[in-house]
Amino acid sequence: MEKKILLTDCPDCKGLIAQITNICQNQHLNIIKNNEFVDKHYGRFFMRTVIEGEFDDEKLLADLDLHLPEGSDRRLISSRNKRVVVLVTKEAHCIGDILMKSLYGGMDVEVCAVVSNYNSLEELVSKFDVPFHAIVQADLSREEHEDKILEVIAEYKPDYVILAKYMRILTPNFVAKYKNKLINIHHSFLPAFIGAKAYEQAFDRGVKMIGATAHFVNEHLDDGAIISQDIAHIDHAYNAEELAKAGRDVERSVLSRALQQVLGDKVFVYKNRTVVFK
Amino acid sequence: MEKKILLTDCPDCKGLIAQITNICQNQHLNIIKNNEFVDKHYGRFFMRTVIEGEFDDEKLLADLDLHLPEGSDRRLISSRNKRVVVLVTKEAHCIGDILMKSLYGGMDVEVCAVVSNYNSLEELVSKFDVPFHAIVQADLSREEHEDKILEVIAEYKPDYVILAKYMRILTPNFVAKYKNKLINIHHSFLPAFIGAKAYEQAFDRGVKMIGATAHFVNEHLDDGAIISQDIAHIDHAYNAEELAKAGRDVERSVLSRALQQVLGDKVFVYKNRTVVFK
Amino acid sequence: MEKKILLTDCPDCKGLIAQITNICQNQHLNIIKNNEFVDKHYGRFFMRTVIEGEFDDEKLLADLDLHLPEGSDRRLISSRNKRVVVLVTKEAHCIGDILMKSLYGGMDVEVCAVVSNYNSLEELVSKFDVPFHAIVQADLSREEHEDKILEVIAEYKPDYVILAKYMRILTPNFVAKYKNKLINIHHSFLPAFIGAKAYEQAFDRGVKMIGATAHFVNEHLDDGAIISQDIAHIDHAYNAEELAKAGRDVERSVLSRALQQVLGDKVFVYKNRTVVFK
Amino acid sequence: MEKKILLTDCPDCKGLIAQITNICQNQHLNIIKNNEFVDKHYGRFFMRTVIEGEFDDEKLLADLDLHLPEGSDRRLISSRNKRVVVLVTKEAHCIGDILMKSLYGGMDVEVCAVVSNYNSLEELVSKFDVPFHAIVQADLSREEHEDKILEVIAEYKPDYVILAKYMRILTPNFVAKYKNKLINIHHSFLPAFIGAKAYEQAFDRGVKMIGATAHFVNEHLDDGAIISQDIAHIDHAYNAEELAKAGRDVERSVLSRALQQVLGDKVFVYKNRTVVFK
Repeated sequence: MEKKILLTDCPDCKGLIAQITNICQNQHLNIIKNNEFVDKHYGRFFMRTVIEGEFDDEKLLADLDLHLPEGSDRRLISSRNKRVVVLVTKEAHCIGDILMKSLYGGMDVEVCAVVSNYNSLEELVSKFDVPFHAIVQADLSREEHEDKILEVIAEYKPDYVILAKYMRILTPNFVAKYKNKLINIHHSFLPAFIGAKAYEQAFDRGVKMIGATAHFVNEHLDDGAIISQDIAHIDHAYNAEELAKAGRDVERSVLSRALQQVLGDKVFVYKNRTVVFK
Repeated sequence: MEKKILLTDCPDCKGLIAQITNICQNQHLNIIKNNEFVDKHYGRFFMRTVIEGEFDDEKLLADLDLHLPEGSDRRLISSRNKRVVVLVTKEAHCIGDILMKSLYGGMDVEVCAVVSNYNSLEELVSKFDVPFHAIVQADLSREEHEDKILEVIAEYKPDYVILAKYMRILTPNFVAKYKNKLINIHHSFLPAFIGAKAYEQAFDRGVKMIGATAHFVNEHLDDGAIISQDIAHIDHAYNAEELAKAGRDVERSVLSRALQQVLGDKVFVYKNRTVVFK
Repeated sequence: MEKKILLTDCPDCKGLIAQITNICQNQHLNIIKNNEFVDKHYGRFFMRTVIEGEFDDEKLLADLDLHLPEGSDRRLISSRNKRVVVLVTKEAHCIGDILMKSLYGGMDVEVCAVVSNYNSLEELVSKFDVPFHAIVQADLSREEHEDKILEVIAEYKPDYVILAKYMRILTPNFVAKYKNKLINIHHSFLPAFIGAKAYEQAFDRGVKMIGATAHFVNEHLDDGAIISQDIAHIDHAYNAEELAKAGRDVERSVLSRALQQVLGDKVFVYKNRTVVFK
Repeated sequence: MEKKILLTDCPDCKGLIAQITNICQNQHLNIIKNNEFVDKHYGRFFMRTVIEGEFDDEKLLADLDLHLPEGSDRRLISSRNKRVVVLVTKEAHCIGDILMKSLYGGMDVEVCAVVSNYNSLEELVSKFDVPFHAIVQADLSREEHEDKILEVIAEYKPDYVILAKYMRILTPNFVAKYKNKLINIHHSFLPAFIGAKAYEQAFDRGVKMIGATAHFVNEHLDDGAIISQDIAHIDHAYNAEELAKAGRDVERSVLSRALQQVLGDKVFVYKNRTVVFK
């Protein structure tokens, strides 16, 4: 008996749950978990179905295509660890957490490689026997630099590319190549404090909490579909540096949670927003 | 078009979602929200289905009875405000919150009456034009006292009885009369600090957080099925009295959340635990 | 024996704690609680000292003035309930909470009056025997309307004016009259979602949490010194209306906490930020 | 200019803050941060003073001894990274976090060695070039086993011994050797779910949150002075294994926070409780 996940994303109409569950039932597949959501604002239906049984993938998908309305998207996903390439700059806390959890439990993922615009983190990454590629910016145009990075990433054919405190803004060209597959951790509760120096901005504003936001990257700065957010309460005694230090714990945990959701095929992206099932 | 909620609670077996949703579909009812959960440990299936359409209740239930396995429980509930009687002693924060929200928004409920073993809260309750019954203990045996309270409650035919800081332990006889309909707010994160003086116990133990637990009442002290829990962080500077003060905010919000879940027909009780759908 | 609070706010320099505590000691006053903070960024020292004993206020302040550096501000405050006037529009949750806590415990405050630009909340307020003034905008210029409100407020000589979901923007003229005495609850985690329709903005951005911010009001919209902030986690299933409903709980609790801090003389304001002692 | 921390813990009496800050002042030392707390229940005064200047330690301590009441304890601590030995069994998440933060930022500590009753974690620990000692229990009495561990620990002369998911109960003999220096992370919100299998206990009770508690170890099981606690909300869908998985995140972060507080000399222990300054 295999276990697969069916993701259905289609225009809302009557009877969708009955139809989809019937199709599974008719093929002697057992539904062991089901989540669905109707976005009434946009008239769209989302369903995540965990199915057990002996699969005839083609038949199942053909049956679905026959019954689902036009404009539907359905994917049948085998349970396996996703492959990711992680981009970093100099900070260790997010990549360290990902490597630790990928190897010792807590995140079902295969980290294929780490790519950086600096070589500061080579020692850390190599401890975990993961290839590290330092692609420094020196003497390269933004486009040349990105092309080299894209080349390295492409070799690994990753399911997702993670920006784990990669501190350079990517061009729309780069972003377009990994639409809905490029995940960033931003060091503020978006949409507040967009761009660099979020903690300096937070200090200047005198806020009483700091936050982090994991989101898909689109062509606008810090504007993509949000996956997960959280905050930590702080007080007047924190200067910008201490805010950044406290923030690292939030960044790490928010990125970790977002990745577990994405890697577990629990996230739909549409209209620059996400549906995240439990 | 009407809106109703179907609650199904039955032994787990294959095809339940398809069967139930089909039955709805066949009767031209539209499912606008669905939650389900399988407890594998106890082999039990739970489903909450929000349905829209023109209902033939008898036919729908008959169809369900035909197809659901033996040992099933299904209820079709019309959306209407539930009736509650609230028992209190002297503290105002929980009953005040319930009255305020019932009248000015935040809780869909009809508070039929407030019953107390003291008369301290009469003034507060009467502001909201809700009947207040002071049934003092003086000269009464525990049984006589409870009988009088039960008599008053019975007049109002409530869907639920809420113990909103009612500080007397109820006898199994009382509890049995309102099985799965009697909700208490306890002033600790259960199972820690059972019984009276929970904040004194918390102070003595030197804990760094205090909590509250909303639960159904069973025949054992503070042992019934938990609906909702939360905590507040505290530090060494809190004495027992300040713990109690901080705790009141948690008690109020935990009870409020639990009531909204119960009153919204989102809670199943079984095996001294709850399934609480979002 | 009396209890008073000494608030000192001065340029930072060596020996301030020793100097101030010595002055208290020499006048046979006992320090029962002390908090201090040095803002190194702005070179400013803040200290809150709870003192017990027999006070000669003039002598104490004169001694302090003799020893504190130029540019110092010190206030000796008798412990008594502060007087507040609350401005509201139509929403009951914040004013309801304030009234309930002022009367039944949880907030040490005297609500002198409630002023509104609508009369929707008159019934609620009058339950608590607090004067309610409806000053409708009809046919009045912004200035005329504000003048009428200012006139009513002035009669009550309040220590603070609370905007408990007062949904009209105040002019700089109004704000200037209650500098550092005008407290607002804003329905977002500032600086995100400034201005009206914060929940619609939040829905549009697809955030995964909503928040509230209590802040002093200055002449710029939603830009004053922040006192307290908090958030609630939400998911894709919330529409703008449900966001607003969930938000009300956060607004209520954030405003309540901020008020308890301000009313307890625990908050210093400077450079558009606050020091909030525990 | 040096920076040191003065920890004072003495019977409460009048004028302590003035006295201690005067002594510093007279020796031309500058107080850059000060926290104090009076436990009125036990009549005890606690003060943590961060001091800058040129120190004559002997003179400072002698002056303090001259003025502090009998039964006082005062320590002058140089700011340096504390030395710790970590005891583990098989779980990687806590020790992994400590190693990562000790090397790459987030925890100012020197991990001298890791000792385990299994060898499962040798590979992980050796990545970080930290000595790993597997001391298996086989064929050893509890006393012999502990003696071997104590011997290894003693070599490193640690400031603290951390039980980072060390799953064997220590004897009073062991505990006595590291009084107030032995820190454990327990996998529940104590005092609920004492002992082994806390997550199974939590599942059985049907709680809606799980927690973790960092505490000093005393001679009674899970009864020592609590340093830090936190919880995560969970729902009916978690089985005991999933509770344990979610719990690991809480355990890691609670232990991390507690260690930062202890290693930063911010924690006083007395009467089986702690004062933890910010």
